[in-house]
Amino acid sequence: MALPWGGIVGQDEIDAYDAAGFGRPQGMGKRPALLIIDVQYRTVGTRREPFWEAIKEFKTACGEVGWQAVDHIRPLLGLFREKGLPVLYPYVAPKESFDVGRLAEKVPALMTVAAKGYEFVPEVAPVEGDVLLPKKHPSAFFGTPLVSYLIDLGVDSLVFTGCTTSGCVRGSVVDAFAYNFRCTVPIECVYDRSRTSHAVNLFDMAAKYADVKSVAEVMAQIRALQPA
Amino acid sequence: MALPWGGIVGQDEIDAYDAAGFGRPQGMGKRPALLIIDVQYRTVGTRREPFWEAIKEFKTACGEVGWQAVDHIRPLLGLFREKGLPVLYPYVAPKESFDVGRLAEKVPALMTVAAKGYEFVPEVAPVEGDVLLPKKHPSAFFGTPLVSYLIDLGVDSLVFTGCTTSGCVRGSVVDAFAYNFRCTVPIECVYDRSRTSHAVNLFDMAAKYADVKSVAEVMAQIRALQPA
Amino acid sequence: MALPWGGIVGQDEIDAYDAAGFGRPQGMGKRPALLIIDVQYRTVGTRREPFWEAIKEFKTACGEVGWQAVDHIRPLLGLFREKGLPVLYPYVAPKESFDVGRLAEKVPALMTVAAKGYEFVPEVAPVEGDVLLPKKHPSAFFGTPLVSYLIDLGVDSLVFTGCTTSGCVRGSVVDAFAYNFRCTVPIECVYDRSRTSHAVNLFDMAAKYADVKSVAEVMAQIRALQPA
Amino acid sequence: MALPWGGIVGQDEIDAYDAAGFGRPQGMGKRPALLIIDVQYRTVGTRREPFWEAIKEFKTACGEVGWQAVDHIRPLLGLFREKGLPVLYPYVAPKESFDVGRLAEKVPALMTVAAKGYEFVPEVAPVEGDVLLPKKHPSAFFGTPLVSYLIDLGVDSLVFTGCTTSGCVRGSVVDAFAYNFRCTVPIECVYDRSRTSHAVNLFDMAAKYADVKSVAEVMAQIRALQPA
Repeated sequence: MALPWGGIVGQDEIDAYDAAGFGRPQGMGKRPALLIIDVQYRTVGTRREPFWEAIKEFKTACGEVGWQAVDHIRPLLGLFREKGLPVLYPYVAPKESFDVGRLAEKVPALMTVAAKGYEFVPEVAPVEGDVLLPKKHPSAFFGTPLVSYLIDLGVDSLVFTGCTTSGCVRGSVVDAFAYNFRCTVPIECVYDRSRTSHAVNLFDMAAKYADVKSVAEVMAQIRALQPA
Repeated sequence: MALPWGGIVGQDEIDAYDAAGFGRPQGMGKRPALLIIDVQYRTVGTRREPFWEAIKEFKTACGEVGWQAVDHIRPLLGLFREKGLPVLYPYVAPKESFDVGRLAEKVPALMTVAAKGYEFVPEVAPVEGDVLLPKKHPSAFFGTPLVSYLIDLGVDSLVFTGCTTSGCVRGSVVDAFAYNFRCTVPIECVYDRSRTSHAVNLFDMAAKYADVKSVAEVMAQIRALQPA
Repeated sequence: MALPWGGIVGQDEIDAYDAAGFGRPQGMGKRPALLIIDVQYRTVGTRREPFWEAIKEFKTACGEVGWQAVDHIRPLLGLFREKGLPVLYPYVAPKESFDVGRLAEKVPALMTVAAKGYEFVPEVAPVEGDVLLPKKHPSAFFGTPLVSYLIDLGVDSLVFTGCTTSGCVRGSVVDAFAYNFRCTVPIECVYDRSRTSHAVNLFDMAAKYADVKSVAEVMAQIRALQPA
Repeated sequence: MALPWGGIVGQDEIDAYDAAGFGRPQGMGKRPALLIIDVQYRTVGTRREPFWEAIKEFKTACGEVGWQAVDHIRPLLGLFREKGLPVLYPYVAPKESFDVGRLAEKVPALMTVAAKGYEFVPEVAPVEGDVLLPKKHPSAFFGTPLVSYLIDLGVDSLVFTGCTTSGCVRGSVVDAFAYNFRCTVPIECVYDRSRTSHAVNLFDMAAKYADVKSVAEVMAQIRALQPA
């Protein structure tokens, strides 16, 4: 597929990264897990609506791009379940009276999302046995026991879906890379309220931290895995 | 100063972030520390040269933009020293035979930088009493005792300088924000090999994690601090 | 008060630690917070009963020593509230179907505690504004955002209460010490199902990580703090 | 072998732990790594001497018990090398001028150990390819990238050796348990300056965090591992 940063990142910049040796593929290991990050009504809205309509329901909504991603996460999730591979849901925990600090100052609108917004989007919601990880900060690893679950599950690779590309997905990928998990981002399965941030964060991740490719390619990799 | 993402991030995107409530200022606390991240010869070269010359010496070099940032870090560093405020140097540790893993796969050129490349750039080098933090991963917090030093020093705010904007600076800012430090990025003091990544990462950080402003404004804030 | 490890740790051992230079006091800083760790019915039982009765209700119960500690935590908690100092409650999160791993293997009885056991003991229960930290692992810092709250609250010192002395209290003290918080353990406010482990863990903490003293002495320190 | 806490922890306490369901075995996984913690001259002295002689050379020395442990670590290390299993060396980093904080206050003698003290004991020293992890705090995981190496190496189990039983070994075991690694402590391979702390910390670890057994039993487990 066409790389999403085409026409946004200049060809001279892409040449510079190539010359410096960035962006080599990592490949997938033997046992990937799927992370579905923050796919809650608060990030897509309860209805399929354009961005400017969606933010009337939840200020945190990304609108149509979110629902399009949900359409692509659904078959990928189905494949993980079929293969018996682990699925984990890091998600934004409802705010409590003692949750103040930098987040509340930087984006106060995040503190007053209605309870409905914290529900999982039913199309890709967790089932019994999936790991649920409420979180207070961008990265799915920060202040959560995610890495303990991954070690117990014998996971060596992670596939990242959800939102936002430039926020919690990016933060989680950087941490996962530092922990030495093999990271893959299926392009159609992550979303953001800014198309430029979305594209440039995918460029950054492809250059430094993750394999960034079409969901079709990722599904082919999963299908080709040998049973453990 | 003109915001560096002007002309790169669309006005409709900026409007969307405003409508969603992003980008409120955090302000600076009472006791900031200065982080000088990866300002080693490997990221600027031993001479002031354009990017395409500089990468002949070190593949990891950013070229002229790095030296321009060094020019701006220098007076800021002088002000921190004058005020007796803490200065910390997270830096890339020389690679060892046992350093393999995702980084070596994604950017193999990072593994073979000559020893000279790991030296600090003399114009902004550490002095006795500064905290040195060798690191193996992008964020200055990951796998280092940085947060322990900051707690011992009673620091509540961090000013980020060095490189790259889209790599170790971005990763460190996201972690610092999650730890609840007040984060400030003086625009002229951070650098990157990609002007687009540089600009969009500053946009992302301004929207979600940090106050992003001119170094002149940051120096005025530091000058105005009351002695503890 | 008589040190609890008297008669358990030999005088020659105490002399050896003195000769090696262990156990110097840290003192308390300017802004302590109180941690009340795992003071839930599961660790004391719903009634004041001896150990061998209490474990019939919850296998995790410590019995009378727990209730005695609650009696001492109560006035200490009152003093923190009176002074407007932060109070935080790290507590054992109810187990979920996906919680397996080492804990479930090592102490399977921990996995089947009745829901009532997860309730806070009312005598020292949280009120609006206290920080609640569900946890899955021994240390209050592991896999939780505790350190982010402490940084936001400007805390420099921690007073540890709750249980067990040799488990979650010990683990939390070791981490807090590593983060450079000043650690104090009021002897009467921590409890354990083993009197020997209780005493020797207090000895270890006093030698290496914390100031271990009577609750009366700790309350005198808190009373003497100047308002910020 | 006789359990080291016999005669120190009372039979009623051991019965209480049994009744509460503690101390079940974890077993070893498929791929263990060996941790050799702080086996530097500073913890044993450059000569085999009794404790009261040894601390004249280094205040941090444990004396004869350290050298006896080295005798037992040596064949275990040989077996790991023979099997091609990973060996990692978390070790105390030499102190620097900026290293202050709680450790310097609690045990000031730790700050002035002569340079020779930081050398590895030659009998069990690292070779090319082993992972070296300088550390500033008790746990081998705190402020180090240890977990990233373990994930990259595909390790699921850890065998702990070195010192002190009640300090860095205990702290590292608690963290490893929380990360969900299977933990084994070969009794003869860990050492401490206090025989009571040594014994009771082994009791605590056996009850809650690790399999604690003779080095002969551990070597039999390693020998029985199937090649990957």
